[in-house]
Amino acid sequence: MTIKLGIIGVGRVGRLHASILTSRVANARLLAIADIFPEAAKSAAEAYGIPDYSSDAGELINSSELDAIVICSSTDTHVGYIVEAAEAGKHVFCEKPIDHDLAAIDKALRAVEANGVKLQVGFNRRFDSGNARVKQAIESGEIGQPQMLSITSRDPAPPPIDYIKVSGGLMMDMMIHDFDLCRFLLGDVAEMYAMADVMVDPAIGQAGDVDTAKVMLRFENGAIGTIENSRQAVFGYDQRLEVFGSGGEARTGNVHPNQVTISDASSVRRDLIMRFFVERYFESYVAEMNAFVDAIENDTDVPVNGADGRAPVLMAMAGLRSLRENRPVRLDEI
Amino acid sequence: MTIKLGIIGVGRVGRLHASILTSRVANARLLAIADIFPEAAKSAAEAYGIPDYSSDAGELINSSELDAIVICSSTDTHVGYIVEAAEAGKHVFCEKPIDHDLAAIDKALRAVEANGVKLQVGFNRRFDSGNARVKQAIESGEIGQPQMLSITSRDPAPPPIDYIKVSGGLMMDMMIHDFDLCRFLLGDVAEMYAMADVMVDPAIGQAGDVDTAKVMLRFENGAIGTIENSRQAVFGYDQRLEVFGSGGEARTGNVHPNQVTISDASSVRRDLIMRFFVERYFESYVAEMNAFVDAIENDTDVPVNGADGRAPVLMAMAGLRSLRENRPVRLDEI
Amino acid sequence: MTIKLGIIGVGRVGRLHASILTSRVANARLLAIADIFPEAAKSAAEAYGIPDYSSDAGELINSSELDAIVICSSTDTHVGYIVEAAEAGKHVFCEKPIDHDLAAIDKALRAVEANGVKLQVGFNRRFDSGNARVKQAIESGEIGQPQMLSITSRDPAPPPIDYIKVSGGLMMDMMIHDFDLCRFLLGDVAEMYAMADVMVDPAIGQAGDVDTAKVMLRFENGAIGTIENSRQAVFGYDQRLEVFGSGGEARTGNVHPNQVTISDASSVRRDLIMRFFVERYFESYVAEMNAFVDAIENDTDVPVNGADGRAPVLMAMAGLRSLRENRPVRLDEI
Amino acid sequence: MTIKLGIIGVGRVGRLHASILTSRVANARLLAIADIFPEAAKSAAEAYGIPDYSSDAGELINSSELDAIVICSSTDTHVGYIVEAAEAGKHVFCEKPIDHDLAAIDKALRAVEANGVKLQVGFNRRFDSGNARVKQAIESGEIGQPQMLSITSRDPAPPPIDYIKVSGGLMMDMMIHDFDLCRFLLGDVAEMYAMADVMVDPAIGQAGDVDTAKVMLRFENGAIGTIENSRQAVFGYDQRLEVFGSGGEARTGNVHPNQVTISDASSVRRDLIMRFFVERYFESYVAEMNAFVDAIENDTDVPVNGADGRAPVLMAMAGLRSLRENRPVRLDEI
Repeated sequence: MTIKLGIIGVGRVGRLHASILTSRVANARLLAIADIFPEAAKSAAEAYGIPDYSSDAGELINSSELDAIVICSSTDTHVGYIVEAAEAGKHVFCEKPIDHDLAAIDKALRAVEANGVKLQVGFNRRFDSGNARVKQAIESGEIGQPQMLSITSRDPAPPPIDYIKVSGGLMMDMMIHDFDLCRFLLGDVAEMYAMADVMVDPAIGQAGDVDTAKVMLRFENGAIGTIENSRQAVFGYDQRLEVFGSGGEARTGNVHPNQVTISDASSVRRDLIMRFFVERYFESYVAEMNAFVDAIENDTDVPVNGADGRAPVLMAMAGLRSLRENRPVRLDEI
Repeated sequence: MTIKLGIIGVGRVGRLHASILTSRVANARLLAIADIFPEAAKSAAEAYGIPDYSSDAGELINSSELDAIVICSSTDTHVGYIVEAAEAGKHVFCEKPIDHDLAAIDKALRAVEANGVKLQVGFNRRFDSGNARVKQAIESGEIGQPQMLSITSRDPAPPPIDYIKVSGGLMMDMMIHDFDLCRFLLGDVAEMYAMADVMVDPAIGQAGDVDTAKVMLRFENGAIGTIENSRQAVFGYDQRLEVFGSGGEARTGNVHPNQVTISDASSVRRDLIMRFFVERYFESYVAEMNAFVDAIENDTDVPVNGADGRAPVLMAMAGLRSLRENRPVRLDEI
Repeated sequence: MTIKLGIIGVGRVGRLHASILTSRVANARLLAIADIFPEAAKSAAEAYGIPDYSSDAGELINSSELDAIVICSSTDTHVGYIVEAAEAGKHVFCEKPIDHDLAAIDKALRAVEANGVKLQVGFNRRFDSGNARVKQAIESGEIGQPQMLSITSRDPAPPPIDYIKVSGGLMMDMMIHDFDLCRFLLGDVAEMYAMADVMVDPAIGQAGDVDTAKVMLRFENGAIGTIENSRQAVFGYDQRLEVFGSGGEARTGNVHPNQVTISDASSVRRDLIMRFFVERYFESYVAEMNAFVDAIENDTDVPVNGADGRAPVLMAMAGLRSLRENRPVRLDEI
Repeated sequence: MTIKLGIIGVGRVGRLHASILTSRVANARLLAIADIFPEAAKSAAEAYGIPDYSSDAGELINSSELDAIVICSSTDTHVGYIVEAAEAGKHVFCEKPIDHDLAAIDKALRAVEANGVKLQVGFNRRFDSGNARVKQAIESGEIGQPQMLSITSRDPAPPPIDYIKVSGGLMMDMMIHDFDLCRFLLGDVAEMYAMADVMVDPAIGQAGDVDTAKVMLRFENGAIGTIENSRQAVFGYDQRLEVFGSGGEARTGNVHPNQVTISDASSVRRDLIMRFFVERYFESYVAEMNAFVDAIENDTDVPVNGADGRAPVLMAMAGLRSLRENRPVRLDEI
């Protein structure tokens, strides 16, 4: 069985999904692309050999040809498209975050449920080989009962200030991936405390955001975690985590572009770690899209569902409140 | 410009190239597949969405639609197909080794030259990110003047005995990759000495081959090298090399399926290194095929030409003579 | 010039210092040992070839032969001995913590100052080659302006419950080393927030302590840090830290008993990291004692002075209050 | 029981043994030092607190106070001192090589045997934690039946030309350690083939020696090995080996002065590996001297006996003949 898909929004991530759907997902056919910028839609359609393109997302959503819609447009449009697609009987893959507002998210989730379609949210890092291996170490009992979690997640450079202004900020846009990994690995979180500041670029502060943050979390199962984010690691895309348990520890390492060590008269060194999220996490994007198509094909549960899309947004809100009020915030306060 | 290709022989490597040509080479179109087993041709054509398939390689070679032929059939058929393809004006990508016989190779090379087509030989390891980085370290002067080279190349398990019988043996089939890497990194070799034995499986010895070998080489530029091969490393596909020079050293490491370290009460460990050549060297196969298609598209030199295909065969012969006579053998003796 | 020393208290750490003073500190002579258990004093004196031993610390303190006293007795005796030794004109090396009570510490510090003697506190980890290298990376500007610090410090197994009862608890006994490293690397701390629990052994909870903790800190210079402690890492003595800055990152790794990697059919592994603090930190104990003797010999400042001994005790108090009240606590509240 | 020792020759290695015998060997007492340069003897005696010193080795050898003699004088004096010491009933520790001449070695060994004393030869690398762990991996069956061995041994810089002239050359002076490790790990060697050249310093060639070499060896048990030596690795003292077997592989790594990784905008790097043999192998010198004193104290076999001292000299001769005649040389030819 072949699953026929359309993509709404062909910015950087939309094009990435287009590339994957046309080459790396066996049973998928990408038939249409929509973007509010007609040239973007056309250019992507040509680049990936997509038959149809449009500047009107509604055409895709209502196309009788398609089984599923992949939403990669700006966050403020997600809920509208999810609702429309669900009502049109289409399965939905939506980039994270679903929305910055819980009521809006809930509206989208109700539409999904009411129409019996699937909704998968784009938390691709769950599919990273390292993170998945840590998950397996936990589930297999290889490291005993998990007690502590530490996530380090640093971008190579901040996004443009214009993007930061609409992104919802570091917690809603960047740390949200780490909130999802927390839940993926150790389940729901009960309480959070955050310290953060502007250390990278004052313009980020002027935009009302922080660029450097640590968050401490208490999981409902009693485990304790920390997340560290920076908008700028000059040495690349620094993405590591470790889970410590009663029987041991599982720790991921960074990914280098090659496995070569150079020794000369000054140091023993490796080339910098990967710098761009597309190459660093490419295989995880491939795996998540395969999982989505498989779930449709076999009518099974998606691996990252609507509730998984909602919870990290709630965590971001708790983190922001903790920052504002300089106190630990329980998630049930929100 | 789009390059149109056909593949002859769709065993394991042929299917690998089919997969790559249909998904990872932007300007390539794989239009036809031939295999002496009609069902194999049909099955591969369906799997990769190839329009035409045949049990007759001649149909491909003489098709006016195609620009290039990728030869993945058994070694004894290589020269015949190269000559036919060259005479039909087709560019040729041929899996290694071209042949086990120098006269036959020379015949193929003359046909290629006479007809002005390109011939690239499938020494994919030159395109591995690690090996390429070592080459760059040499060429940039990062490690000074190269003085010594060490290659360790171990397969996870021996191939079937039936394959070993027709393979030309460890030196012609397996170490030939390392002979090519020697030339890629440090240039031509002047003299070789080999020690080898049957340590893995007596049946390999009964088939007239060895399964474990070390070779020492003197390069024409004076550098000294060693190659170590084993048909069986129980921990996976062990592929490493290092070049030592007056200014330092460049050393490749193995590739693991993930970057996770597990510590428990017994050890600090990682999952085994990759076990299968397809996954271990996948990106190098992608890169070599892109390089071939680029060379045709831009009418530039291929990165691994006929002479590069011939030289390692000569080295294998010298290695075999050294083994038989237990003495160092100069390549100009052959 | 030779510095003549006596040791008070020859439990595990006292004997360690005896071993070092008799073999690894060029200009030191260890002349006397005192312990309230006469057999312990005698046995240590014999083991290390010390001329005099006594069950009366006062004899050492008032001996006209000695230049300096090394205090390794139980924490509750520290202040008394420091005051007596200072009044007797002896320089003092005192194991950490000086005391659990700030007023008592201040009394000791006043005695030291009034009598013009030196007081060095036993925060040996400043002298660890890894921690010292990170400090150098900060001071040399190699990693730019420090922004975040993460310390992971896990013991291989909890101490006896009887010890825990008098130790002052995890923060005063164990994390105090990490509090000192915070100050060593990034200076004074302004505010702290702690989460902790009993995850290893309920008996530790019954003794009124925790065995697992994370603390978040805001430094006065604006940097943000976290410390993670566990009383039990089954894989050994897990001691790592990293400092992240505007120009890069410096990260220490664990120490293994050898550099051997074993690959077999199940994993690629190393022997467990070192398990005992004596072997793990031996060279740092050697270095701190050399630094103490050097400071006396050359009449220079000791590298870890009384104020450095006091500050981590204050931090432990703030951490304990944060735990009790589940809120961030500023150090100027204490 | 205390073993009383004297050292003959207090150059660099003699002073190293003096330092170890006075601080790191519990039951040893170093009572006397002799050196043909009286000031050297005096200076070392003062530095290490040795009661007696002399410019006459005979005084030590015939002293009724001493149990054992540690010979660290120049190679040409070894056999004479061994014979005298044996005849005086003293146990002997002798630095490597015993001599460059087999007949002379045999004379020393006969004297040792005739007088019932122990002779240990200074192949300290057997006691290195990494090499010892590899040995353990072999003996425990952890890596199955050994099939191949690779040793890389590179000095940070060549010794003075004057030393090279009397050293016996790279094979007798430097590679002899690796010959010993071959025997330590896999037993006796049957046949060898060498390639070598002058790549580091023409003056070494003018002195009749090479500075860069690879040797291939066939062990009597059928395993195949290679050794690589260079007199100059600009990045430090590069000392690694690996043993590959039917069940896996054991591989040692280099030793760095700390475990810190620095990442900045140009690379991910570590400080250079250790550069000086004393610091790199210090613990192995400590361990070998403890083993010698233990063997005397308990009247057990020494771990590196006279035959172990003789065999690597034979291997060096075979290696030199292979170089001269450019052919594999069997050890039973010598």
